Amino acid sequence: MIERCLGAQRSRKFHRALRQCKVTALCLVLTVVVLRGIIGAGEFGTPEKDFYEIRNRLYFPSRKRGGDPHRVLEERRATSSSFATHDRNHYKNNYDEFNVKMFMEDNGEDDEKPDPNEPYSRGPKISNWDAQRAQWLNENPDFANFINKKPRVLLVTGSSPKACENPVGDHYLLKSIKNKIDYCRVHGLEIFYSTALLDAEMAGFWAKLPLIRNLLLGHPEVEFLWWMDSDAMFTDMTFEVPWERYKDYNLVMHGWNEMVYDQKNWIGLNTGSFLLRNCQWSLDILDAWAPMGPKGKVRDDAGKKLTKELKDRPAFEADDQSAMVYSLATERDKWGDKVYLESEYYLHVNWAILVDRYEEMIEKYRPGLGDHRWPLVTHFVGCKPCAKFGDNLAERCLRQMDRAFTFGDNQILRTYGFTHKSLASGRVKRVRNETRNPLEVKDKNFKPVQSQARTMDTV
Amino acid sequence: MIERCLGAQRSRKFHRALRQCKVTALCLVLTVVVLRGIIGAGEFGTPEKDFYEIRNRLYFPSRKRGGDPHRVLEERRATSSSFATHDRNHYKNNYDEFNVKMFMEDNGEDDEKPDPNEPYSRGPKISNWDAQRAQWLNENPDFANFINKKPRVLLVTGSSPKACENPVGDHYLLKSIKNKIDYCRVHGLEIFYSTALLDAEMAGFWAKLPLIRNLLLGHPEVEFLWWMDSDAMFTDMTFEVPWERYKDYNLVMHGWNEMVYDQKNWIGLNTGSFLLRNCQWSLDILDAWAPMGPKGKVRDDAGKKLTKELKDRPAFEADDQSAMVYSLATERDKWGDKVYLESEYYLHVNWAILVDRYEEMIEKYRPGLGDHRWPLVTHFVGCKPCAKFGDNLAERCLRQMDRAFTFGDNQILRTYGFTHKSLASGRVKRVRNETRNPLEVKDKNFKPVQSQARTMDTV
Repeated sequence: MIERCLGAQRSRKFHRALRQCKVTALCLVLTVVVLRGIIGAGEFGTPEKDFYEIRNRLYFPSRKRGGDPHRVLEERRATSSSFATHDRNHYKNNYDEFNVKMFMEDNGEDDEKPDPNEPYSRGPKISNWDAQRAQWLNENPDFANFINKKPRVLLVTGSSPKACENPVGDHYLLKSIKNKIDYCRVHGLEIFYSTALLDAEMAGFWAKLPLIRNLLLGHPEVEFLWWMDSDAMFTDMTFEVPWERYKDYNLVMHGWNEMVYDQKNWIGLNTGSFLLRNCQWSLDILDAWAPMGPKGKVRDDAGKKLTKELKDRPAFEADDQSAMVYSLATERDKWGDKVYLESEYYLHVNWAILVDRYEEMIEKYRPGLGDHRWPLVTHFVGCKPCAKFGDNLAERCLRQMDRAFTFGDNQILRTYGFTHKSLASGRVKRVRNETRNPLEVKDKNFKPVQSQARTMDTV
Repeated sequence: MIERCLGAQRSRKFHRALRQCKVTALCLVLTVVVLRGIIGAGEFGTPEKDFYEIRNRLYFPSRKRGGDPHRVLEERRATSSSFATHDRNHYKNNYDEFNVKMFMEDNGEDDEKPDPNEPYSRGPKISNWDAQRAQWLNENPDFANFINKKPRVLLVTGSSPKACENPVGDHYLLKSIKNKIDYCRVHGLEIFYSTALLDAEMAGFWAKLPLIRNLLLGHPEVEFLWWMDSDAMFTDMTFEVPWERYKDYNLVMHGWNEMVYDQKNWIGLNTGSFLLRNCQWSLDILDAWAPMGPKGKVRDDAGKKLTKELKDRPAFEADDQSAMVYSLATERDKWGDKVYLESEYYLHVNWAILVDRYEEMIEKYRPGLGDHRWPLVTHFVGCKPCAKFGDNLAERCLRQMDRAFTFGDNQILRTYGFTHKSLASGRVKRVRNETRNPLEVKDKNFKPVQSQARTMDTV
């Protein structure tokens, strides 16, 4: 028909042009499709999802389609939940840097579906835990809860049983646990790394509550449980927690009394790194803390209430940190006298406040200070290395996590005569010549740590 | 000029065709390039390398170009290096399943370039380590090398400072260290997780030697160092190593005397999981072991020698396991009386022999046996989850590693009243009702482990 309309010669030209256009169009379409999968510019929709979909289809054909579920047992917050002990103004100026939206996305839910008709139950109430535990300790003197006046401590952390959505996420989880292993070995702490969601309703940032409860009851020999987020790292390998300071307290968190009790500020304390004594009081506060946690309507409604009641809190579902602020602020008489809000050293510090200053710290200060000069724990709030990448923050997070890790690792390696070539490098070099008498050159500036007897895991 | 040759009209046609061809060609080139990076079919060369190159360029623009370096500090072998204690024939039938080619690729070299003109040096020879150590122990009674007759043990493992080439590799490294943390907590062992290559020449499977030496010298309080590969997992959380059996020995490996000393079989023993006493003898055997390690000509030539001298060894560069077989077989008088080749329980077992039998084990046996009925350590030789995927073996490896991990994890979770829903599932369920008296229901079948004082990391 085209030939009849245009004539033979023109028809041939038309067909030739059409063929070339088809090839051109096909190439362009293919290119756009694959580029979209790789580059992922915003205009294309959810490109990271496509990228991982392509990767999954090609590399893991037997894996379930539809993207990896969210993380569990990880603290996900873009909180500016730490005030620099000496620079609150600096913190406030940087508040906007933290993308609260990221906090509200991907809060680590597992894809279990609890029965909405079943009321949430935390198990039978225990009312005499102190007596039970005292009797057990009396019968098991080999597992004393104090050794040389130092409490037996179990450091608890964890992550999802599933691989991270982000290909490098598990690598940073690995570095983080290696970092914790080092600190704990030096300081005589035990570690429990959880990869199990013990209660489907208490998923996401709430998953730590049933875990902590089970561990307290399962380890009567443990005096203090130290919860630490997987995105928090030890950056002072020498600093020893001042346990004696807390002899009359049961819960220690980084924070400020006025921010919690006076302002009811949702970031007046931080639950990414805290100490909890193994006692009846702690079981009671866990019970008081938990009700806002069950996911779904309960958590959503609780979130609205928390946003209304707490200062500066954005709108999102209830998180454990806000719930703790609320509990303490509204029931200060009940809990306050046993809660220590610590701000003299960095039981936790928001990474953004000081990660650019590691070189300055190395030049001016030394390990063992634990505070703004040499922070005990650097906490990468808002970074979420395990979740899919969202924005430019990711690149900065990973780079700074590497630096923080190396900053801590150098303090370990130095005892063996090594150090990293730079804070950005995984490579190491010798800084102390080998000798025929290695025991004479052990660093005399630091004292050996106290011994600690082991926990009683009966397996 | 074209216009002069062809005439105006033809020239326009020519130019138009040329433009269309250029567009077509550009599209085709772009499409091929990005497809090559994504799909990675063999004909395109090293597609996985391009895929990660593209990913790196787009997601990590500040990272160094050139592809990810190989792994370090990991045991890479496709060895059939373990004979089933009760089923050597079964093992031999499965030998071909292990892809020795995989072993020879990607042996974990870091991309450091040691100076070929510098002779390899392991540092000044120490000749009186026993005396130095005895004096130190005498001066530091808080850090005794034995507690209640049990030796102080440091479990050592590690992996590369860089993220795995395989996106899920780090996830399996993470599960593996969580598994080791659990066993060590139960049994009173300390852990050192290394992510540093201490000696550029001794890369790949040889990296453990300088690490072990530095740790022995850095931890005089440690009596035994237990090296364990990152691809080995504890599958019996109850079994206690029979330390008393080894009181007159300095090196314990899984293996068989006749396979090593009579046959000089390269898989007559396994160096993926072994115990090494902290003493002068051990420093000496490390010195004797190391010479085949330096990468390059030394390692290549040594490989040829080992292939010639050892039974059934394929041709590839010298590995630490073959070198140990060779050292023992050729210098039995020098070392043999202090080496215990253990075959009564699975200090290591090749995964392929028994991973399909976990359900049968659960049905018939119980933890604490440590042998073919309930193996202490399941070792995923040949799997290399951190390296890029090579073939169908990868899928089976990951699935079985999950099962082995869960098999071990169930033994830990049970103490808290939980278990996984199946060996293939990351989800857990309660198997013991909660109670108001949790201490009355602690499992009475197993005894508490002995306490162990901490190591002396001075930081």
